[in-house]
Amino acid sequence: MTPEEEKYLAIQEEILGQGQPDKSLEDMYHPADIAAAIEHIEDESRMLEAFSAVGVEMGSQILPLLDESSRELILDNSTPEELAELIGEMNTDDAADLLGEMEEEVAEEVLGSTSAEVDAQVSRLLQFEPETAGGIMQTELIAAREEMTLDQTLDLLRSRPDINREVYNIFVVDNLGRLKGVAPIIELLLNPGMKKVGDMVDEGHPPIYVYADDDQENVASLFKKYDLISLAVVDRNMVLLGRILIDDIVDVFVEEADEDIMALVGAGDEVLSPATSVVEMARYRLPWLTASLAGGFVTGALILLFKGTLEAAIALAAFIPIVMGMSGNVGSQSSTLVVRGIATGRIDPGALGAFIFKEVKVGFILGIVCGLISGVAAWAWQSSAEMGLIMGGAVFLAINLAALMGAGIPLIFKWLDVDPAIAGGPIVLALNDITAVFIFLTFATALIHLLH
Amino acid sequence: MTPEEEKYLAIQEEILGQGQPDKSLEDMYHPADIAAAIEHIEDESRMLEAFSAVGVEMGSQILPLLDESSRELILDNSTPEELAELIGEMNTDDAADLLGEMEEEVAEEVLGSTSAEVDAQVSRLLQFEPETAGGIMQTELIAAREEMTLDQTLDLLRSRPDINREVYNIFVVDNLGRLKGVAPIIELLLNPGMKKVGDMVDEGHPPIYVYADDDQENVASLFKKYDLISLAVVDRNMVLLGRILIDDIVDVFVEEADEDIMALVGAGDEVLSPATSVVEMARYRLPWLTASLAGGFVTGALILLFKGTLEAAIALAAFIPIVMGMSGNVGSQSSTLVVRGIATGRIDPGALGAFIFKEVKVGFILGIVCGLISGVAAWAWQSSAEMGLIMGGAVFLAINLAALMGAGIPLIFKWLDVDPAIAGGPIVLALNDITAVFIFLTFATALIHLLH
Repeated sequence: MTPEEEKYLAIQEEILGQGQPDKSLEDMYHPADIAAAIEHIEDESRMLEAFSAVGVEMGSQILPLLDESSRELILDNSTPEELAELIGEMNTDDAADLLGEMEEEVAEEVLGSTSAEVDAQVSRLLQFEPETAGGIMQTELIAAREEMTLDQTLDLLRSRPDINREVYNIFVVDNLGRLKGVAPIIELLLNPGMKKVGDMVDEGHPPIYVYADDDQENVASLFKKYDLISLAVVDRNMVLLGRILIDDIVDVFVEEADEDIMALVGAGDEVLSPATSVVEMARYRLPWLTASLAGGFVTGALILLFKGTLEAAIALAAFIPIVMGMSGNVGSQSSTLVVRGIATGRIDPGALGAFIFKEVKVGFILGIVCGLISGVAAWAWQSSAEMGLIMGGAVFLAINLAALMGAGIPLIFKWLDVDPAIAGGPIVLALNDITAVFIFLTFATALIHLLH
Repeated sequence: MTPEEEKYLAIQEEILGQGQPDKSLEDMYHPADIAAAIEHIEDESRMLEAFSAVGVEMGSQILPLLDESSRELILDNSTPEELAELIGEMNTDDAADLLGEMEEEVAEEVLGSTSAEVDAQVSRLLQFEPETAGGIMQTELIAAREEMTLDQTLDLLRSRPDINREVYNIFVVDNLGRLKGVAPIIELLLNPGMKKVGDMVDEGHPPIYVYADDDQENVASLFKKYDLISLAVVDRNMVLLGRILIDDIVDVFVEEADEDIMALVGAGDEVLSPATSVVEMARYRLPWLTASLAGGFVTGALILLFKGTLEAAIALAAFIPIVMGMSGNVGSQSSTLVVRGIATGRIDPGALGAFIFKEVKVGFILGIVCGLISGVAAWAWQSSAEMGLIMGGAVFLAINLAALMGAGIPLIFKWLDVDPAIAGGPIVLALNDITAVFIFLTFATALIHLLH
């Protein structure tokens, strides 16, 4: 047993055991560990028992931390009133996420059972798309009017024991609630209490903020660029609506990378979740497979078009997978470079042309090296200089075209405002297969005609 | 021009312009924007001019933020004394990273020109491997002995104006410098000044920490699991060595995702850097291409083994790319699922067997659907029920095997303690090609023999 597993077992015994411990659970373990321990209970009824045994306050902390399948189990086995109680204790962003996971009628019933304040705040968050700044923000924040003194601000902070351990910045606003700047809480420690909080923000330095409808990927890149811990979310009139904390952005980074990776193989990031059923997994992956199947039939039809050439020299059939493999590999490398480069901001949108040109040059080198190797190998294998020439020439041409297409197709998608990641996987691969086989057979047929 | 580009242009004019502005640069712009503006200067000598114009203090902040090619340019055009001055102003983690990018002799000369204190601190950091906790930590932190009062701790905080705006936690240590716990700075605001800082940490709750030689990927998953802002790094005797801040971990998340993604297509994440030259790019990608080339030749040899079958029915040659494409796609999907699942901790190491079994079931469904479609399509295309049967049966078998191999091979790598990401790309693809072609041709030969 790993030390982690031992810890989880101890927590499980603590929760489900009979004896009353002298220390409370939250003094001994971090909520993330309690959540992991509950997740590791295999028996469903014992898991439910453990979840209700930790109580509403701890339950509201760990429910958002559980994996999807455990959370689903708990949601399915709780009454709307129980869920309303849990949601009343939760941060608003977690509450909104949780309600988004429920059936609409259930969510409405649950919200109806919460206090009017929770209902109003969470309902407002639910209006935003899940993958926008508004969809990931929370309304728990400390906003101080600019003329308030630091002492008054400190009183405000003290009046919110529910959130003050997660406060890193004071958001400074004017009388209309519009964001004027951000003051780190360390300023409250370093400055005399009668100073104004409005003087704690850099005047010239415009505050960093996002609009509620900004995409979460843009929000994440702001966090990365400016090394932020928290970020203000405003409406188009600069009125402060909420804040986003870095720990939610960490999840966004993982999520966006998942999306990019899974798109490369033609599957949504839903297939990564252990809660996704076998049938759903198959359904998410089938569209790309059938697209690739269609591409395969086109390639096959091309091969039959050149039946005469193949019948004359059946060894050429053996070369087809080599040319396809080479072109497929180079094409995937190039397209992945572009897709990931765009997603992480490494490729400057203004320098896309330069990037393609670089890929073409790299493709040229790869084409020469792989063309030479495969040409010489084919020559030796078939004891035929002609076969060597066909093989080497076709590999050289196919690799060059694969690099150009691999880099170019995602960029065309980008220009059309379609997520370039979609182009990165099966589409590039299918097009590469078709062009590689076409180049190879045309080149082979032409060369054979020329030489005989 | 985008608003971003306008801002960069304004900054460039500000830096390189003649007039003395009434506000200093750092009051008007964030260092990240100044860095971006300098990066966007195309002319190299103007870029160098701009960098020296911002001065040593701002320069030390922006140098770590610049892209690799700009930073390389500046490093190559600065004297060891200039670099020593910059490094003296930098955070220790940035200084260590920068020295790691220099030639060893240059780095030694630079370090030799810094103050003894900087030399000692940075040299200690340089002893750790770059991708470990020690390699990414900084020594800038506030450590308070547990018997210190909050007032004394506040004095300590005030005495470090260089770092206190980046302090989120006080690390509480005993007389031997061993970590006892972590107190959020908000406790200094909420509690009376004569309280002891040692009482601000949960006694029962063990502090979260990492050892200096822990891998950065594990560090990142602790940040994600516990929603941390900063994390203590200790040696094996629990002596506090440094801290890691969340903004460096954000970079780790992006880096690790890059590594996973690029490994899938057989290239290191170095190829993502715009600073990598064309020849280097080709060199990073060639090993995998030649491995794939070797796989292609094996596939080709297999095809020639079944020359008789192909000569009897040349249409079968047209089916080869279809079977290869299907099996390659399913195999990449399965292996990517495993690689990413392991990397993000979604696949429980104890439940790997269950995961493979699930993939096998998904493969079965995909095999039935794609086998049916391709069988009927082949039947209609070739007007031959026999061809339909061969195609459908081979696609069904190849997809099932591809799912099993795609999920299984990365796990075998994992068991052998090799990074499973290496198996995810070209290796799985090459093995898939070989087995798919073998299955197809064996199945076709057997069926033709059986039916005639």
